[in-house]
Amino acid sequence: MSNQNNQNNQILKNTNAQILDEFNASIMFDKELYAQDIKGSIAHSKMLASQGILTNEEQKAIEKGLFQVKSEIESGEFKFSLAYEDIHMAVETRLTEIIGEPGKKLHTARSRNDQVCTDFTLYVQDKTLSIKEQLKELVATFVDIASLHTTTLIPGMTHLQHAQPLNFGFHLLAYANMFKRDYERFESSFERNNYSPLGSAALAGTPHNINRELTAQTLGFTAPTLNAMDTVSNRDFALEILFNISTTMMHISRISEELILWSSYEFQFVRMSDQYATTSSIMPQKKNPDVPELLRGKTGRVYGNLISLLTVMKGLPLAYNKDTQEDKEGVFDSVKTVEISISILNEVIKTMIVNVDKMQNACKIGHLTATDLADYLVQKQNMPFRTAYYITKDVVALANSLNKDISELSIDEIRKANDELKNINEDIVLYLDLKNSMNARNSFGGTSTKQTESQIEYFKKWLENK
Amino acid sequence: MSNQNNQNNQILKNTNAQILDEFNASIMFDKELYAQDIKGSIAHSKMLASQGILTNEEQKAIEKGLFQVKSEIESGEFKFSLAYEDIHMAVETRLTEIIGEPGKKLHTARSRNDQVCTDFTLYVQDKTLSIKEQLKELVATFVDIASLHTTTLIPGMTHLQHAQPLNFGFHLLAYANMFKRDYERFESSFERNNYSPLGSAALAGTPHNINRELTAQTLGFTAPTLNAMDTVSNRDFALEILFNISTTMMHISRISEELILWSSYEFQFVRMSDQYATTSSIMPQKKNPDVPELLRGKTGRVYGNLISLLTVMKGLPLAYNKDTQEDKEGVFDSVKTVEISISILNEVIKTMIVNVDKMQNACKIGHLTATDLADYLVQKQNMPFRTAYYITKDVVALANSLNKDISELSIDEIRKANDELKNINEDIVLYLDLKNSMNARNSFGGTSTKQTESQIEYFKKWLENK
Amino acid sequence: MSNQNNQNNQILKNTNAQILDEFNASIMFDKELYAQDIKGSIAHSKMLASQGILTNEEQKAIEKGLFQVKSEIESGEFKFSLAYEDIHMAVETRLTEIIGEPGKKLHTARSRNDQVCTDFTLYVQDKTLSIKEQLKELVATFVDIASLHTTTLIPGMTHLQHAQPLNFGFHLLAYANMFKRDYERFESSFERNNYSPLGSAALAGTPHNINRELTAQTLGFTAPTLNAMDTVSNRDFALEILFNISTTMMHISRISEELILWSSYEFQFVRMSDQYATTSSIMPQKKNPDVPELLRGKTGRVYGNLISLLTVMKGLPLAYNKDTQEDKEGVFDSVKTVEISISILNEVIKTMIVNVDKMQNACKIGHLTATDLADYLVQKQNMPFRTAYYITKDVVALANSLNKDISELSIDEIRKANDELKNINEDIVLYLDLKNSMNARNSFGGTSTKQTESQIEYFKKWLENK
Amino acid sequence: MSNQNNQNNQILKNTNAQILDEFNASIMFDKELYAQDIKGSIAHSKMLASQGILTNEEQKAIEKGLFQVKSEIESGEFKFSLAYEDIHMAVETRLTEIIGEPGKKLHTARSRNDQVCTDFTLYVQDKTLSIKEQLKELVATFVDIASLHTTTLIPGMTHLQHAQPLNFGFHLLAYANMFKRDYERFESSFERNNYSPLGSAALAGTPHNINRELTAQTLGFTAPTLNAMDTVSNRDFALEILFNISTTMMHISRISEELILWSSYEFQFVRMSDQYATTSSIMPQKKNPDVPELLRGKTGRVYGNLISLLTVMKGLPLAYNKDTQEDKEGVFDSVKTVEISISILNEVIKTMIVNVDKMQNACKIGHLTATDLADYLVQKQNMPFRTAYYITKDVVALANSLNKDISELSIDEIRKANDELKNINEDIVLYLDLKNSMNARNSFGGTSTKQTESQIEYFKKWLENK
Repeated sequence: MSNQNNQNNQILKNTNAQILDEFNASIMFDKELYAQDIKGSIAHSKMLASQGILTNEEQKAIEKGLFQVKSEIESGEFKFSLAYEDIHMAVETRLTEIIGEPGKKLHTARSRNDQVCTDFTLYVQDKTLSIKEQLKELVATFVDIASLHTTTLIPGMTHLQHAQPLNFGFHLLAYANMFKRDYERFESSFERNNYSPLGSAALAGTPHNINRELTAQTLGFTAPTLNAMDTVSNRDFALEILFNISTTMMHISRISEELILWSSYEFQFVRMSDQYATTSSIMPQKKNPDVPELLRGKTGRVYGNLISLLTVMKGLPLAYNKDTQEDKEGVFDSVKTVEISISILNEVIKTMIVNVDKMQNACKIGHLTATDLADYLVQKQNMPFRTAYYITKDVVALANSLNKDISELSIDEIRKANDELKNINEDIVLYLDLKNSMNARNSFGGTSTKQTESQIEYFKKWLENK
Repeated sequence: MSNQNNQNNQILKNTNAQILDEFNASIMFDKELYAQDIKGSIAHSKMLASQGILTNEEQKAIEKGLFQVKSEIESGEFKFSLAYEDIHMAVETRLTEIIGEPGKKLHTARSRNDQVCTDFTLYVQDKTLSIKEQLKELVATFVDIASLHTTTLIPGMTHLQHAQPLNFGFHLLAYANMFKRDYERFESSFERNNYSPLGSAALAGTPHNINRELTAQTLGFTAPTLNAMDTVSNRDFALEILFNISTTMMHISRISEELILWSSYEFQFVRMSDQYATTSSIMPQKKNPDVPELLRGKTGRVYGNLISLLTVMKGLPLAYNKDTQEDKEGVFDSVKTVEISISILNEVIKTMIVNVDKMQNACKIGHLTATDLADYLVQKQNMPFRTAYYITKDVVALANSLNKDISELSIDEIRKANDELKNINEDIVLYLDLKNSMNARNSFGGTSTKQTESQIEYFKKWLENK
Repeated sequence: MSNQNNQNNQILKNTNAQILDEFNASIMFDKELYAQDIKGSIAHSKMLASQGILTNEEQKAIEKGLFQVKSEIESGEFKFSLAYEDIHMAVETRLTEIIGEPGKKLHTARSRNDQVCTDFTLYVQDKTLSIKEQLKELVATFVDIASLHTTTLIPGMTHLQHAQPLNFGFHLLAYANMFKRDYERFESSFERNNYSPLGSAALAGTPHNINRELTAQTLGFTAPTLNAMDTVSNRDFALEILFNISTTMMHISRISEELILWSSYEFQFVRMSDQYATTSSIMPQKKNPDVPELLRGKTGRVYGNLISLLTVMKGLPLAYNKDTQEDKEGVFDSVKTVEISISILNEVIKTMIVNVDKMQNACKIGHLTATDLADYLVQKQNMPFRTAYYITKDVVALANSLNKDISELSIDEIRKANDELKNINEDIVLYLDLKNSMNARNSFGGTSTKQTESQIEYFKKWLENK
Repeated sequence: MSNQNNQNNQILKNTNAQILDEFNASIMFDKELYAQDIKGSIAHSKMLASQGILTNEEQKAIEKGLFQVKSEIESGEFKFSLAYEDIHMAVETRLTEIIGEPGKKLHTARSRNDQVCTDFTLYVQDKTLSIKEQLKELVATFVDIASLHTTTLIPGMTHLQHAQPLNFGFHLLAYANMFKRDYERFESSFERNNYSPLGSAALAGTPHNINRELTAQTLGFTAPTLNAMDTVSNRDFALEILFNISTTMMHISRISEELILWSSYEFQFVRMSDQYATTSSIMPQKKNPDVPELLRGKTGRVYGNLISLLTVMKGLPLAYNKDTQEDKEGVFDSVKTVEISISILNEVIKTMIVNVDKMQNACKIGHLTATDLADYLVQKQNMPFRTAYYITKDVVALANSLNKDISELSIDEIRKANDELKNINEDIVLYLDLKNSMNARNSFGGTSTKQTESQIEYFKKWLENK
């Protein structure tokens, strides 16, 4: 083999090596965990000192050194490079540069396996708390706007067809309920996963005389995890946050769809604040609801991140496998997506202009009080429901022939619609009125202004107590 | 147009109509909900009577009629047909055939929208409870088998490479932990979703003077739901059970993978009971681990069912849309899959034959006590971890050159491996012993027999209290 | 152990055995493949005879027997039971009952592994062809309806906002293009996967002197597959049909969304035939677009089936593993879903009533000819596009202030909108006319009636040649 | 409101505005398309000049300016900022800075909608070609290594149980087949999607006298797309590359799983080159197959990206919606993932050390020639297969009792195993030999060395012609 060939081979080998480093290294994304890594290391060093494994001097040097690394990272001074492989190595290497020998002792009684679980759990728990706070604000916004619209009529729809008159506040509270359930899911997953992996070591615990309760406590965990092998193999906490985010984004996609519909020329129920609607490059008159469209579209990526990690975890033998390095990017992406999405939706809802007239006029299309008529016949006339149903059909047919909504029919017109109605009491007209109809639905959880206000009260108390 | 053509058109129209009925109808799968539908209707009728909307006689007729429908369904006498469209119509139609006029009154103050939500929620809650019970049994099985193997050595693996000696009981308890977390997820989703949709009506409540607290109580719900529109639009409870099942099946896929590996010729750690391993059609000597393979494969379908419903719900405007009719088949399928899977895994684990000798011999491959050596150097010799790490490499190299495992090295051999070891104390040999090594990992959650036993105690108490 | 205990254990064992049979057996779904299984077996027997492995008499007995089994299955006479385990055993067992000894020879030189691949490939190929035919019909329907509407104006939307006037025929042809691409995907996957697995045996071929070219030919395959191990491990063909169906259903979900919007009170662009819109149980006046909603919802299940099989196949070692038994149900379900969906969509489109007036009136909302104005300024006045854009904004602002659409502005009004326009030629008015605007977009693939007709011509030729 | 409040509000508004810009802008990821954007713009400008819409001088200025922008981007001089919103604006804005007025004319007769489709299609097509090339190299590597091992015995497995003796070359060729099918899928999607969107404008074409055939040709497309509305709404090409990549990664996950198994202590069939296996931080003797584990794990993210875009596209009304901005990141990520994965797998396979002895010895476990025995009885003794099957079982039982593999049985031993064998010809011993057995499977596609060599020949020709 000639020298030339040797040289070429060496270059090729170097190129391959670089590609491989890029492939293997997680540093370019797991640097996101620097704060958690340093927090975990400080807790670990304190415990080691308290157990006599480190001297107090060593611990102090480590803690000071770690704070320096942290400030170097936060100032941008620290240069991340593939050579570090992961955030744990990056921090430890720099620490040892700064403080020398004691830095090397920090890794006593732990392994990268429990370290990565600890950092990632801390991240997921931190984000769970902050997303919860955001959801609370979002619920508050829906409740605030709802409280302005407890008498604003809007056609309630099923199958995107006008069905019954609602008040718009009631409609908005449906979303308050969804985001409250999302809040509760995050609350519950926080509790369920709040256990400290630290001290599980590679997969089997450690022979060192450590105190896992102490590190758990320092880090804000409820207790240490129960079984080291399970601990380093477990990514349930990551799956849970991915699922919780998916459900939240699904709810966001539903209000987004409604905002898109409502801001169309056909509906014109709301107009989005200029900030949240952009103009077209070629059609200057258009106001495009880009923001809700993008919110709706972002559902896709969080569903994808969920299925990604479910796929990764399927069929993995215990304990740690490198496959699980693929757990983080999807979580980071879903977290960022839901954070910005909640934040922006919150502003969109706060700033939208509600076109009350358009909403109320729309209620006069579609005979929205038809069920009131049917209910009237059942309740006041004691008819079986199925009979009332067929009579109602006749009244609707008559109104259609007169080109009116049934809420606009006179008592005389109603009496002609069907033989069974020929002597009907004139109070029936009241039952066909739109606002009356809305207020008539006064069962618990119903759309009446009274019930809507009581739902608002409920939420206000809930918000106060959270 | 000739008569012939007319006839053909009629036939075509009928064919189309039949295809369409098939397409639209849900009866062929939602009949699964018959018991919940009848239970819900009885509760509804009782409430209607208590509110004076039905007479007691009517209520009694309805209740008796519904019991008859139920027994007709359970005896197979009842013939489901597409004409009924869905289970609610099927039950109501038959009820009215049996009892006449009062049957028609049952639908007062409810709609198919809240009825279907009630039935489906009841189903999900029933199944959540029974899956929880199954998971408890499964945990108990893992704990039972674990308690037989707290001193049985097995090579603990990371990256499917021998890493450290464990006891097999400790390994099995990792799964007890997973299935306990699954249990807790079902427990939590049960609480979070235990609210009664009944009385939400189509989307806005009802003008009838109903008592939703009463039906909620009769049906075992915590309370009625808060907002009617949210209630009929909500499928979070279905998504949660799909996610919980996905996580459970993911855990099942992991133990299945291990069972497949362990029953291969290469491992031979366990042999599955003849029941759970089948022979090949063409290779009579093979014992195929069909059952764990199928368990592993079934992860796919439950992931699919989860993504299906997430897809369905994305971007749906409020309130009810027919798309959500697609919510049930996937849930039924996932429920059946997880039920049979837990049940069969439970038997597989109970009946597997553990090859203790193979497990223990396998521990002598791979220098499993290398970390003990490193730890010894750190703890007893006060070396920095990174230094100990490099010395350990030399001992391993020596052992390899002697074709021995490091647990088989003599003190003289060890002393020659590296200059730093030349005067090393002879107790180092004890640290390289496999069983000592396993027992040395005595930190909380570690693999030592003592810690394993304490984990078993924990689970026994947990099982008693659940 | 007492007798009682023995008895109980036996019962328990039997119950477990039954659950296990249910779990393991595929007969209850793979019976769907009976025709393909029999077809494959006949081809195999003919080849065995031609190679002298069977006598002609044996082959004839087998063929006759298989036809009898087929007719027993098709008449409903044949009772499928779990005892058969799968369709292959079911057919072979019954065959041997009918014809005795020669039945047992049929399995010579094949294995269940290549048999199941053959059957399933045949099924996928058969269905690929029939779905292709359905898609062709669907394209034809869109082309037919489009040809009735090449001058019907409809507001073209982006972001669900009115953008430019189109003809409705042009809009419908967008779907013709989508379903044509779907057709091409099925066409392509058919070619790519049309290779015969038969004769691959368990995983390595067979020592028998078989002729795989002959069976490939008999079964309509292009050639035998190249590598036996790959053949029994391969499910790419199943993944491809699942993906192709997913894409088709995604397209169906888009036209469904539009049909739902268009049939809302707000749009009223189309009315679905009474057959395809159902009435509400409680709101007699409503026409719910159940059919397109269900079509849209069914996208979920086919996405789920795709992700299911992708999950199953991930990380499987070669060759056959029982996990792949999970390949069929999802494919069957997706195939049935897409078949019924195309069939019903085809009827919905054929029978929908187009409300031409509503569509055309809607074009007068939103200044749809704004881009024409900008283009006019660029083309006739030689302005840079970005300048024209800002002038257009002024004209729109003026029209808004006059409460008019820009298509309704007089030349005098236009000239006042912006200084640059004060001497503008009066032909500008023609450019603001809606129909002119539509016809002006006469670039290849544009919306002008002329281009639309030429697209229709293209499709007619394409349909003829397929 | 105090000044302080005003200031705070302004700050808040600015913060919101920045978050919103981040949310809306695509520049931070779609800059990946800079080369395609510039290429598309040059083609567009040339066409505009050839149609007389631009002067030649204007076109030349534009082209020169665009090359300058390109070189500024490639040198890193160009600073991307959120203010540009997307890559199209970034390039156009900079172009206009450089060349003034003519830069503004470039946007004549196109819209961001067709521009983004053009750029993205060009990207997908470019990557499709380069992935195809990589797959070809990968196939070549598998064929090369296979050609070294056409007589190396390895136990062929089904259900991870030894089944039949294969040669290792044959096993590797299974993967050559998979990656060849992947190649063909990319080839086919390239052809199917090679149509030019340019000139479709916003959704309806353009009134300018453009020549779409010319831009299509300049850009290497087969022809312009047929319908402008479909064109701007279409993302099928992106879904296809995501699916093609998913299937490729699924195949990569399967060889990865096998590499992980094969490099375990239990198998020891291969050893990965030191480059591709890393050591543990705490267990110095371990060689972890990190690379194949990560390859296996990366399947998750590409599945996720596929489901993401499928979700985004579900139920979108025509034409362009902002949701589709979510189409790119997943495609970029999947492309990068598959590129690095193929590249690294290629090296792993090239450099792996095959442990021939271990493979061959493993063949003596599991009575791998049992089917040969059965086949012998069928072929030479004319027994029905099912009878031969039961006799084979007896021989296996005998071998087990002697603690031998059946390939090690003497003719005398065989004759004692079952009455039917008592006079069996002694050539039966030859049929039980492992290498003979492998070579006996000489049917087309079988594992015999002869067939394997012929498969290698086939691939060599295929590679030459591609």
